[in-house]
Amino acid sequence: MEAIANIKDYVLDTARRARRAALKLSRIDTATKNNALRFMIQLLQNRADEIKEKNQIDLQNGKKAGLSSAMLDRLELNDKRIAGMIEALETLIELEDPSGRVDREWKRPNGMTIKKLRVPIGVIGIIYESRPNVTVDAASLCLKTGNATILRGGKEALHSNKVLTDLFREALMQAGIPQDAIQLIETIDREAVSVLLKQHETIDLIIPRGGEGLIRHVVENSTIPVIKHYKGVCHLYADKELDENMAERVIINAKVQRPGVCNALETLLVHQDLKDTFLPRICSALHSHGVEIHGDAITCKKDPQALLATEEDWYAEYLDLILAVRVVKNLDEALDHIETYGSRHSDGILTTNPQTADTFLMAVDSAAVFHNVSTRFTDGGQFGMGAEIGVSTDKLHARGPMGLEELTSYKYVVTGSGQIRE
Amino acid sequence: MEAIANIKDYVLDTARRARRAALKLSRIDTATKNNALRFMIQLLQNRADEIKEKNQIDLQNGKKAGLSSAMLDRLELNDKRIAGMIEALETLIELEDPSGRVDREWKRPNGMTIKKLRVPIGVIGIIYESRPNVTVDAASLCLKTGNATILRGGKEALHSNKVLTDLFREALMQAGIPQDAIQLIETIDREAVSVLLKQHETIDLIIPRGGEGLIRHVVENSTIPVIKHYKGVCHLYADKELDENMAERVIINAKVQRPGVCNALETLLVHQDLKDTFLPRICSALHSHGVEIHGDAITCKKDPQALLATEEDWYAEYLDLILAVRVVKNLDEALDHIETYGSRHSDGILTTNPQTADTFLMAVDSAAVFHNVSTRFTDGGQFGMGAEIGVSTDKLHARGPMGLEELTSYKYVVTGSGQIRE
Repeated sequence: MEAIANIKDYVLDTARRARRAALKLSRIDTATKNNALRFMIQLLQNRADEIKEKNQIDLQNGKKAGLSSAMLDRLELNDKRIAGMIEALETLIELEDPSGRVDREWKRPNGMTIKKLRVPIGVIGIIYESRPNVTVDAASLCLKTGNATILRGGKEALHSNKVLTDLFREALMQAGIPQDAIQLIETIDREAVSVLLKQHETIDLIIPRGGEGLIRHVVENSTIPVIKHYKGVCHLYADKELDENMAERVIINAKVQRPGVCNALETLLVHQDLKDTFLPRICSALHSHGVEIHGDAITCKKDPQALLATEEDWYAEYLDLILAVRVVKNLDEALDHIETYGSRHSDGILTTNPQTADTFLMAVDSAAVFHNVSTRFTDGGQFGMGAEIGVSTDKLHARGPMGLEELTSYKYVVTGSGQIRE
Repeated sequence: MEAIANIKDYVLDTARRARRAALKLSRIDTATKNNALRFMIQLLQNRADEIKEKNQIDLQNGKKAGLSSAMLDRLELNDKRIAGMIEALETLIELEDPSGRVDREWKRPNGMTIKKLRVPIGVIGIIYESRPNVTVDAASLCLKTGNATILRGGKEALHSNKVLTDLFREALMQAGIPQDAIQLIETIDREAVSVLLKQHETIDLIIPRGGEGLIRHVVENSTIPVIKHYKGVCHLYADKELDENMAERVIINAKVQRPGVCNALETLLVHQDLKDTFLPRICSALHSHGVEIHGDAITCKKDPQALLATEEDWYAEYLDLILAVRVVKNLDEALDHIETYGSRHSDGILTTNPQTADTFLMAVDSAAVFHNVSTRFTDGGQFGMGAEIGVSTDKLHARGPMGLEELTSYKYVVTGSGQIRE
């Protein structure tokens, strides 16, 4: 790839071209956008060898640079992963495009009509780490909703991201959509991110996807709105009024089914009345699933295999077969714990008492709160959104799983017959 | 007022107390919040002398500091303004509280139910300039929707803001609501703002209200989401297919009725086919209303009183009886002008052709777009929202006039009977 002489000018130019493309894209109909997605499917099918070839360069560079085998695995684009991208595009084509929908329409006493019209957000910057399939996933969701995308992937995946972006731009051209609707920042220079994060005149939203370090860097340096979640320290609280069988099933599922993701359980809070009954039972069940327990003093007394938890354990997002377990006096102590150590992502209560459940569901300030359901359901697909660009723990604009709807904004369209203000 | 020894600790403590109050406030019912508003009305009535006394200190300091008479006028709290605050509170009590409303509820194939529940945003920081009535307006809108408020007013209004905040905190106490739901930053040290703008762990939203300089400073230094508008450079485009009488009425209203506000007209674009007919007519009508015209070469040729516009005129938010006027070749040139120089606030078209209107309304990327209606209607009251905390030119979270609904977020409440993820 050619060297870029002036990073600042390059990023400014990219952002300006994205803004121009976004203005055109906002007026392009859903059928045309779906055509572009279909062309992209064809290109992914016909040019798979080219994709794998470019990916090999990244993989070889990665090996030389000493990337871990887990990192190399995330980086790899094989036939199965290309098929996965195609499948996601096929699903996306079927989904309703929220852009252009009238959410509400009303008439004012003076006769003018106000419509609240759903429109694309505009230009969205995606800053992500190594998985190159994010390139296609993120760009396609943005395209479907009429947004222009500026992609900035990890340096390890530069050649893979470049070939995928080039193919997507080819698909755009085939469909008659401005190619600048999808652009990749083609330099690994970190200055590019610094400049990008200050373009609030042309870029409307930044979505960072990656580790907590990346996300904190973006939040602390961006003048553009950012939607993100730092981490998912998800809790379940086992109340004294409990269906033990159901509680065990839900806790095991939330911890064990896929421990490496943000909606997996990280801390279990148990009411003190259960310390001689449910507590030893659930600890034993967790161990039988290979889970290591970091417990408070009472838990360690009841479960000799448990390790004594430190203060850091209550903050930990293990993303592994480890669970922090704490015995609490009552609901209020559980709520305090979640408020102090939680990440406002996904937290649930296990109880047969609907009043207790209601208090918990109202009091916990998280994007998704659960009663007698596994936290693993915080997910666009599981919520019925069809696709997901991420999960937000922010309060503003979008909270929880973000689907197509959450990639749109609105504008007010006012029509009349010469109304003036008195 | 006492000096504050450590600004950073003071602001951190304020933000933490606001967060704690917000968690409690989110569970307080509408009747209790309305009670607090009623107690505040009583206090404003019974303690008006105290308010005016404290306001006198600010006014005298302001005179000594050489504030302009316009500034001193904005700063003054007299009986009429106190009555205005009371009236706004009375209106607010009658409005529906959106917090706690279920926006959508659906059942998933596995039997679990998902509710999208409207909730308060949390802690909102308001940073504003001299008008002390903002203290009561902003805090009361936030309170009604269940948000805690941190107020940071201008240094000229410190004593006025302090007495109003103290009264509001008294009203909260009378209603049994945590007093820390409304707090004032009681120092004029600018470090307090710098620290405040970095508290993204405890503060959910910053709303700056004031001049463009203040707003840019906030955007560039905040790690917390900011909702704002920089300025309102509002346009009307007079199309070649025109009802001249209606167009004149709307243009005069948009420019003249209240020129000092953000939704007033600042630039008129006229189709070239009208240069010998409507253009001289509207210029003459504008002059008869005392409007000075800064026009392009053609306008100056047709209107000898017009001054020749410079590039700066197209960017200008005059907030005065001055109007920029430009002749354009066609709709596309009008759209380009608005995209280049506009502020994405409020822009309209005057035409009898519905297709032309439709193209304009879709293409202009502004919070509110108008067809044959004055731009002066971009306003929460005029839109039927009942109250307004400001107008947003942002795309995210809220766009256009922001009422009570826009001061809320949502959370997902999932209930089930032991559902686990397969």
